[in-house]
Amino acid sequence: MTESQPLQRVGVYGASGYAGQDVVRILAQHPHVEIAFATSDNYAGEPVPATDLQYIPHDDASLSAVDVVFLALPHGASARRAATASAHGVKVIDLSADLRLDSAESYQRWYSATHPHPALLATPYGLVEVNRALLHGVDMVAVPGCYPTATLLGLYPLLRAGVILPDAPIIVDAKSGVTGAGRAPKPHLHFPEVYGNLTPYAAGRAHRHVGEIEQEIGKLDADAGALIFTPHLVAVDRGLMTSIYVHLKPDFPADDAPTLYRRAYDAEPFIDVLPDGAQASFKHVVHTNHCAISLTPVNGRYLHITSVIDNLVKGAAGQAVQNFNLMCGFAETAGLC
Amino acid sequence: MTESQPLQRVGVYGASGYAGQDVVRILAQHPHVEIAFATSDNYAGEPVPATDLQYIPHDDASLSAVDVVFLALPHGASARRAATASAHGVKVIDLSADLRLDSAESYQRWYSATHPHPALLATPYGLVEVNRALLHGVDMVAVPGCYPTATLLGLYPLLRAGVILPDAPIIVDAKSGVTGAGRAPKPHLHFPEVYGNLTPYAAGRAHRHVGEIEQEIGKLDADAGALIFTPHLVAVDRGLMTSIYVHLKPDFPADDAPTLYRRAYDAEPFIDVLPDGAQASFKHVVHTNHCAISLTPVNGRYLHITSVIDNLVKGAAGQAVQNFNLMCGFAETAGLC
Amino acid sequence: MTESQPLQRVGVYGASGYAGQDVVRILAQHPHVEIAFATSDNYAGEPVPATDLQYIPHDDASLSAVDVVFLALPHGASARRAATASAHGVKVIDLSADLRLDSAESYQRWYSATHPHPALLATPYGLVEVNRALLHGVDMVAVPGCYPTATLLGLYPLLRAGVILPDAPIIVDAKSGVTGAGRAPKPHLHFPEVYGNLTPYAAGRAHRHVGEIEQEIGKLDADAGALIFTPHLVAVDRGLMTSIYVHLKPDFPADDAPTLYRRAYDAEPFIDVLPDGAQASFKHVVHTNHCAISLTPVNGRYLHITSVIDNLVKGAAGQAVQNFNLMCGFAETAGLC
Amino acid sequence: MTESQPLQRVGVYGASGYAGQDVVRILAQHPHVEIAFATSDNYAGEPVPATDLQYIPHDDASLSAVDVVFLALPHGASARRAATASAHGVKVIDLSADLRLDSAESYQRWYSATHPHPALLATPYGLVEVNRALLHGVDMVAVPGCYPTATLLGLYPLLRAGVILPDAPIIVDAKSGVTGAGRAPKPHLHFPEVYGNLTPYAAGRAHRHVGEIEQEIGKLDADAGALIFTPHLVAVDRGLMTSIYVHLKPDFPADDAPTLYRRAYDAEPFIDVLPDGAQASFKHVVHTNHCAISLTPVNGRYLHITSVIDNLVKGAAGQAVQNFNLMCGFAETAGLC
Repeated sequence: MTESQPLQRVGVYGASGYAGQDVVRILAQHPHVEIAFATSDNYAGEPVPATDLQYIPHDDASLSAVDVVFLALPHGASARRAATASAHGVKVIDLSADLRLDSAESYQRWYSATHPHPALLATPYGLVEVNRALLHGVDMVAVPGCYPTATLLGLYPLLRAGVILPDAPIIVDAKSGVTGAGRAPKPHLHFPEVYGNLTPYAAGRAHRHVGEIEQEIGKLDADAGALIFTPHLVAVDRGLMTSIYVHLKPDFPADDAPTLYRRAYDAEPFIDVLPDGAQASFKHVVHTNHCAISLTPVNGRYLHITSVIDNLVKGAAGQAVQNFNLMCGFAETAGLC
Repeated sequence: MTESQPLQRVGVYGASGYAGQDVVRILAQHPHVEIAFATSDNYAGEPVPATDLQYIPHDDASLSAVDVVFLALPHGASARRAATASAHGVKVIDLSADLRLDSAESYQRWYSATHPHPALLATPYGLVEVNRALLHGVDMVAVPGCYPTATLLGLYPLLRAGVILPDAPIIVDAKSGVTGAGRAPKPHLHFPEVYGNLTPYAAGRAHRHVGEIEQEIGKLDADAGALIFTPHLVAVDRGLMTSIYVHLKPDFPADDAPTLYRRAYDAEPFIDVLPDGAQASFKHVVHTNHCAISLTPVNGRYLHITSVIDNLVKGAAGQAVQNFNLMCGFAETAGLC
Repeated sequence: MTESQPLQRVGVYGASGYAGQDVVRILAQHPHVEIAFATSDNYAGEPVPATDLQYIPHDDASLSAVDVVFLALPHGASARRAATASAHGVKVIDLSADLRLDSAESYQRWYSATHPHPALLATPYGLVEVNRALLHGVDMVAVPGCYPTATLLGLYPLLRAGVILPDAPIIVDAKSGVTGAGRAPKPHLHFPEVYGNLTPYAAGRAHRHVGEIEQEIGKLDADAGALIFTPHLVAVDRGLMTSIYVHLKPDFPADDAPTLYRRAYDAEPFIDVLPDGAQASFKHVVHTNHCAISLTPVNGRYLHITSVIDNLVKGAAGQAVQNFNLMCGFAETAGLC
Repeated sequence: MTESQPLQRVGVYGASGYAGQDVVRILAQHPHVEIAFATSDNYAGEPVPATDLQYIPHDDASLSAVDVVFLALPHGASARRAATASAHGVKVIDLSADLRLDSAESYQRWYSATHPHPALLATPYGLVEVNRALLHGVDMVAVPGCYPTATLLGLYPLLRAGVILPDAPIIVDAKSGVTGAGRAPKPHLHFPEVYGNLTPYAAGRAHRHVGEIEQEIGKLDADAGALIFTPHLVAVDRGLMTSIYVHLKPDFPADDAPTLYRRAYDAEPFIDVLPDGAQASFKHVVHTNHCAISLTPVNGRYLHITSVIDNLVKGAAGQAVQNFNLMCGFAETAGLC
């Protein structure tokens, strides 16, 4: 791969949402990309930040102008665009939930809708640090959700090593900045309602990401217990933390966890296992594609893990570009910081 | 007035908006008040914070159950309720803009609508520190707007003394917390759009409060120049600052201003003229009915005044209760802090 | 008890800290209190907000001028003042950690210091909803810590009923506004460091409140497992949430928990068990003495509890006044909202 | 200039302060830079974010290792380092106030200190859009202050055209995020003191930047009146707004201002004159090197200008790199967004 390689022509659907804006912002600085279009039905005609483009309606975009599309559309709408783009020979990086689950049944359960293109459910799950071998050179990828990304990266070394106590619940107390809830104004997201507040939502097992997280946990450790997952809305714009509490097998001392994690992630450019005693915070990762992880062994048998990402970067746009880099054969870190 | 006086039965229309919520919160602690009802069409049936009541629709409220009503309704709607309540012999404290302007022409100009009850435009303007003599025992009052309250209290000693240079512009750079924009969700008030931001709006002479402020300035000093008024939206929930810049007459040294202000406001329970060198900030006043004022003479000829209030208390609900106290013959500070 | 009862003369030590400020603010509105003095070594001579007083140095305060003192001093200093005040026949309400633990050994372990007055460790623990019967008319009380208050109120109905699975860990993921860290400026509490951030600290079992919480849990349920406790610093000024995850005994269905909690707290003026499906948030409680609790049963065997308070009110100053009311025979809610 | 040009070896002094951190962050992504060292006495030994370096003490840095140094040091200390570096043949980009003023008398007046190296006061003032012709290929530059940058860019087209009414005051109501106050913790910058607050400081003509701004105004328009300048501390991390109010000469209609500004800044890569009616806000510029300007003509004779920058980028580190690019012959926008 050299600098003289021709630029990839890229289109971004849903480019006015928060994830879409970050896709554009990152691609605008990417050394191997030319942005061909950025779509938005709501903001058509307005300038696209960080570019010289104007938003165009989704249906005005020409697939023949691009090599790759990023889909930052609502679930349901996204699968249809993915199918169309694929039929035109265009590579697809889908940031929605439409391609993440493995079966139409699961999709029906968590999204209360019939999947429009079940064949697309075979699309690989783009959690690069776990599935890198499956992602080189593919034509379509499902970018993981924000909570699943932080949760799965926080659990991966334990799951792979098989050291979590079977059937013990995996407790995830999660916190997200408000961009995670999207750009559409709603009463509970009105500035004065959020300012100074902190609120749980979709507590227990109600959040849609429970299905996605348990699906991926199950592939790595079939004996893992149920997920108990409570997300909270935090009064900041970006940042996502999963605070994970697990019970370990008797033969795996909690104090061995730091070494296990350092080995697992030593070569990863975007995963930072913090020094013992340090605690991962939003400031470690916002505006970057990094995931910071800190570990606190408790009483020898329990492990408390804090896994932090920028919900819009590693949790969406940055991870999407990381997948794009793998698809196109670029350096995995190209355009990312 | 004694503790044994019967309680005033009070109704609050529009009690789910931010100003209405604060009216209820203050009245719930008021020693001489019994809240009879709190209306909200949008939140009917839900509990009213700080009370044992539930919101009822506006039209379900019974005027025969109350002695006084507070109207925290949108302009246009408010004048109609005021006329009806008055016809039932119920006292009216109107927090909307409907009763503040002196003529139907002015209302048409600034609110782009025909006034529904022009006779009500004779209602006294409830800026207590300026108009106290007019407000004792009246049956209806127009509570001043938030920006007019801070601006007029900041200028009053100068206007009354006639020391502002004729025809020189009065520059007011204002800043308000987001509750000032109301409770209805809008794209530009969505949490992530406001967070970390600071933005001017309605700059120059576009804001509706320009008409109200100039009307009241003109009554105190007919020679005063035009208002240049730029409000800004600040990423906090409550607080309002007017930063005022005036050119003084040659025979009034700017350094005499602090004494002028202290004399004007010495006996006022809610106006705090800060010591020389101190600067008025949101923290001086939020959650109180106070207005804090600081003064900076510049080069002998100019005065920079900072006048700060809580936009929902002294700028709305608190000032409304202050007027209520005057109307009913209670201590002016009853129920207020 | 009538309005004509003589006022209690009250002194506040450490009145310039955040908890001390709130003690003064609440007492200034209390119907049965006259504030005699407010001490601060750092701010001596400056005005005390919400009063006409000036701060005086701790050593200038006269115990003969008061019936009761509130101590909002650092641990270590507080026990000495408590002993002195008690010797003068003055009632003591201590907001520090000095009187909370039951043994000098425990104090040594968690505070790394020899307790200066071990006899004071017999002082009753002022968690009113749990220990009310022990608190009427006493002369000294230890006000519980902020995290212990929210955690213990969140667990109390389960502990009293004995329905938590023995030896299963009790996981508490806690979040606090920054006033909980005190008023002294520190690098990690500098505005730009906290703004936009969220950070765990003292994770696992390192926080001093672990000792206090486990001590009180043990009195209610001797079989309860170890506490796993991770507090987080949230970028707001006030508010404290404990997110509690417990494993229940097989014979207690998680779905029975809401009824258990409603019965336990039905008559409590300051405890709000929210309707099923609602989630407790900072907005439910800030600037009040209330504790809001929401419950999420999971898979029949686990219970997720969210317990929220204002760290400075129910978590400090308000609970202190609630204890003061009990000590003096006033209505428990006097001066509180 | 080609990609094959050797990298400039750069050292950053004072790299742990907020401006220094942003210098490092920008240089780490700069295509023509290799960072040789980053100094900090307070954080020596700790990792330097966005690099593989560790902070070293100022005195451990080797000037022979670098071609250029950025000085992000306190005033006083900076001039000494500048003189030393220059004596070693190293180019200097100074972000402090030490090289900005034109005379030792002015420095004495505004900084209350004798200038340590008055000969350095001949250093060119690096406000690129005004002084570009003076800045190509120089060996030392004084990077303008944050408030002067926004104020002067906001006024430049008017000053150059000579259309401001002589002797009329130029009123600047300014607002800055808290990083502008530096990284050292102080009581008034403690998180809970700033949160929810807005406060003026150094009002009137007390702020040190008054001297710098008036010096540069005077070079462009000798008849301009006095500056009235009140900065405010805003509860966000970054962003700086100057709200400027000027009185125009009778023969220059305020409505002609937008055309004047568009012509002046048409070719500037970092200056954005917003469309009529739009208002410049923090969101237009934070994390970029841009200055956004909006214009509101008032009554034909007055102009209200809003000029906004990121105080750490265009107001410090970004503008420093812009100067670096000019010094070294790189594209002016290299490494900047």
